[in-house]
Amino acid sequence: MKKLINAPDTVVTDALAGVAAAHPSLVVDVENKVILRAGGPRPGKVGLVSGGGSGHEPLHGGFVGYGMLDAACPGEVFTSPVPDQVLLATRAVSAGAGVLQVVKNYTGDVLNFQMAAELAGDEGIEVASVIVNDDVAVEDSLYTAGRRGVGATVLVEKIAGALAEEDADLTAVAAVAREVNDRSRSFGVALTSCTTPAAGKPTFELGGSEIELGIGIHGEPGRHRGPMRSARELAAVALDAIAADIPLDGELLVMVNGMGGTPLLELYVMYNEVASCIRARGGRIARNLVGNYITSLEMQGFSVTVCGLTDTLTRLWDAPVDTPALRWGR
Amino acid sequence: MKKLINAPDTVVTDALAGVAAAHPSLVVDVENKVILRAGGPRPGKVGLVSGGGSGHEPLHGGFVGYGMLDAACPGEVFTSPVPDQVLLATRAVSAGAGVLQVVKNYTGDVLNFQMAAELAGDEGIEVASVIVNDDVAVEDSLYTAGRRGVGATVLVEKIAGALAEEDADLTAVAAVAREVNDRSRSFGVALTSCTTPAAGKPTFELGGSEIELGIGIHGEPGRHRGPMRSARELAAVALDAIAADIPLDGELLVMVNGMGGTPLLELYVMYNEVASCIRARGGRIARNLVGNYITSLEMQGFSVTVCGLTDTLTRLWDAPVDTPALRWGR
Repeated sequence: MKKLINAPDTVVTDALAGVAAAHPSLVVDVENKVILRAGGPRPGKVGLVSGGGSGHEPLHGGFVGYGMLDAACPGEVFTSPVPDQVLLATRAVSAGAGVLQVVKNYTGDVLNFQMAAELAGDEGIEVASVIVNDDVAVEDSLYTAGRRGVGATVLVEKIAGALAEEDADLTAVAAVAREVNDRSRSFGVALTSCTTPAAGKPTFELGGSEIELGIGIHGEPGRHRGPMRSARELAAVALDAIAADIPLDGELLVMVNGMGGTPLLELYVMYNEVASCIRARGGRIARNLVGNYITSLEMQGFSVTVCGLTDTLTRLWDAPVDTPALRWGR
Repeated sequence: MKKLINAPDTVVTDALAGVAAAHPSLVVDVENKVILRAGGPRPGKVGLVSGGGSGHEPLHGGFVGYGMLDAACPGEVFTSPVPDQVLLATRAVSAGAGVLQVVKNYTGDVLNFQMAAELAGDEGIEVASVIVNDDVAVEDSLYTAGRRGVGATVLVEKIAGALAEEDADLTAVAAVAREVNDRSRSFGVALTSCTTPAAGKPTFELGGSEIELGIGIHGEPGRHRGPMRSARELAAVALDAIAADIPLDGELLVMVNGMGGTPLLELYVMYNEVASCIRARGGRIARNLVGNYITSLEMQGFSVTVCGLTDTLTRLWDAPVDTPALRWGR
């Protein structure tokens, strides 16, 4: 295993120390693994907390800042954060208007966020939760009952974060988060596996010309394996899967996301094919993101996320955001 | 070879079509491979043109926009752009105040930009060139006489772009570009090789626990190969090499750059170690960048670039920038 680390058991805390050193706009509790906005919560604003296993950077820590999250709780690599950690974050961002948890649908994450929500409730903090479950590839999977939560998480965090910044109440912020999730679907493809520092060997094995269609972000099995195909064919596979679930006409927000080890050059080739596919189906991409936003360590591959926009969602997407990984308009 | 492409000979044009589709702020001449700011040049502003082989994205196309480049000329993968291409870009960004070429020190790039400068000169366009040569690893290398140009290119483009935006003249913009280059040094480490689409096999071979210290961005040989080491040890190797050439005290701008296939989690681990090393040497990191800015396709590894700041350079670094890959403060 060749990785830029000191030791498998200090990867996450060493990286968090790096995040703290790099970003004066964040306050990082390295010991408890909580990333917060510097300056603390603004009174009367709904606090947004997310989190999950590490290894998906910039998700979630890279999305803490103005117009997006108030706190992120990174677990160990591909491991859920613990309830105490989420409780600490919830307390830290509670400013009298309640706290919204954005939770990807993995059994461990859901249970631990729920436990933290109950503990926070006992302390008088009102907590609402949104479970993100946008991955159309499979129902039930390793670690998941129902659909997995993947790329839509980025969209939910951005759009709900924007509404929270406008001092909307907890009910409204939770509702828009659910709406974004309901209107979004994703599909991922892996060209290679990835290796967690603790395991030291690939999570799964893929042949030299084999790919996994419908991959999960922890390398969980997808729909099936097959031979390598062209970017054009892969775009069609991904969008067929998505179109079976939501309409692809109208105004869309589309993210072509890299899994961590794919060159940006290839992501733009994929985006071009995805855009052609969507045009051919009568859709219009009104907004887009191309890059590494929710990754699986050094996995090569991509995912496509499509969200049907409304005027309100577009306005909230365009609203200013200032985080390490997403920044515009401020 | 598993890559998200349609065919090796259409990778660059397919990716450029994707860039055009994704970024309405850019105008892309896909056939001639030139990326420009939409809206054309502002009269009286020095035009900034850069370019080089593709495969290093977001460099250079991702840095076209307000406060940075006016045009980028991507060649084929790891191949210099041709003179006609650079001439087209130079003409397109010429707005009466001259054009600055930012050229990484590779023999083909230097020759082709020089030829384009002469042709543009014949048409009455004043052109100045800055050759970036910040890589301390080796003198003379595959494709290079003297030191190679690597990470400092990002800094030169940002800072010279900011000064050009203030309507400084060509002499001043060229001078600040040279100053940034003179004050900057870089060192890179590869954990894995990379595969160009045209070759279909790795550019070089590395053993399962072997790394290349002082790697070039096309996989050119560095100083030597050795066994894998910890992030802490690798930071010390890189900074020892840099410190042999420039002082590491005072206010510094430090970039920890991923080679394309390295997880962001690991880059933050590296940044933490680099920051510790620099503190121990009496330096203060006043500004930083952590992420993939100048890559080598899917290569795993990192590079460190250090630039000694002055008040003016810091001010120009902080100035607003609005490009696909670098955006703040506007």
